[in-house]
Amino acid sequence: MREFILFTHKAVTSDFSLNDLPSAGRMDLVCRCISSALFISEAIRKDTSIHVVLNGPPSPPKTVSFFGSEVRNLYPDERTIASFIKIALRKSFKLKGKEEIQIFPGLKISRKSFEDLIKEREGKSQLIYLHKDGKDFREFEFKENLTIVLGDQKGLDKKAEKFLERFKAEKVSLGKVEYLASSCISIIHNELDRRGL
Amino acid sequence: MREFILFTHKAVTSDFSLNDLPSAGRMDLVCRCISSALFISEAIRKDTSIHVVLNGPPSPPKTVSFFGSEVRNLYPDERTIASFIKIALRKSFKLKGKEEIQIFPGLKISRKSFEDLIKEREGKSQLIYLHKDGKDFREFEFKENLTIVLGDQKGLDKKAEKFLERFKAEKVSLGKVEYLASSCISIIHNELDRRGL
Repeated sequence: MREFILFTHKAVTSDFSLNDLPSAGRMDLVCRCISSALFISEAIRKDTSIHVVLNGPPSPPKTVSFFGSEVRNLYPDERTIASFIKIALRKSFKLKGKEEIQIFPGLKISRKSFEDLIKEREGKSQLIYLHKDGKDFREFEFKENLTIVLGDQKGLDKKAEKFLERFKAEKVSLGKVEYLASSCISIIHNELDRRGL
Repeated sequence: MREFILFTHKAVTSDFSLNDLPSAGRMDLVCRCISSALFISEAIRKDTSIHVVLNGPPSPPKTVSFFGSEVRNLYPDERTIASFIKIALRKSFKLKGKEEIQIFPGLKISRKSFEDLIKEREGKSQLIYLHKDGKDFREFEFKENLTIVLGDQKGLDKKAEKFLERFKAEKVSLGKVEYLASSCISIIHNELDRRGL
């Protein structure tokens, strides 16, 4: 089971225009990450899910979760993925507390924060934080159940980083170059695929 | 110098709607590939260019070329990249023969075919064809000047494959999984970055 958690600084938590994803707090980046996480050529990775923490206005945090095992009618283009998120956000006014509601099969939304997501995984999944100062990913010992945390173009904020330290997340690096978040996901998937994990 | 050549089966050669890139012959895939080829986090790769052969209706082939060394005001989202291609296609009615016209700094369009692009690189650049039956990329000897050829979701057609054989392109594989073309680009960039090429 591969899980990704994408932390965003400003991805919006209300309705947005499909014609201008960058202005919706870099929703374009969010959609590319979901695409890279879930899609291979002509198929969806059934063993993968991705949770995106939206920390932008007006009512953060909200988390949208895509599950490769169940999602249908999703395509790898940014606009289709954004349209799923848009529908989820429109229905998110119903949310109470930390409950999670299903929008479609394989798509859920909740008011969970980054910290909530990390806490839920404690002791159940190897926690990995993609960071340029980490151990080289090709030498790293990945386990079968893992959660890979990454930030948007600004990385994680200090509070989220400290929280990860507290939960003993291991820092893993892809090399000296800082890649687009979506490229990071493609590179790490390739490594895990090669190992048969 | 890293060059990518993306062969498409049906990417359109006339104007298209920015609101439906998949219907424009998978222009979404084209844009994701350009994004993966040119962008790292918050910067453009100055040493990289990508040439996309559009083989869709109504007047194929046309080739749009993006040069990381010169392009400005480009962003990694599909829609912005598509808007550059759209402008290039609108101006492409002026094209005569195989001449190449500059649309903006770092963006050119021509009536060059896939075969034209390959011929131009003969003896100047190591020619690599990303294919699942190739040599493993982590063992492969890449040279400093290289051209990496890849196909869209349908791969290359037979004619293009035969042409590559004739020009002694070397097949290189990323592993057993067939990835999105844009993910292939991210994975190969990482390998080249690690080697300092």
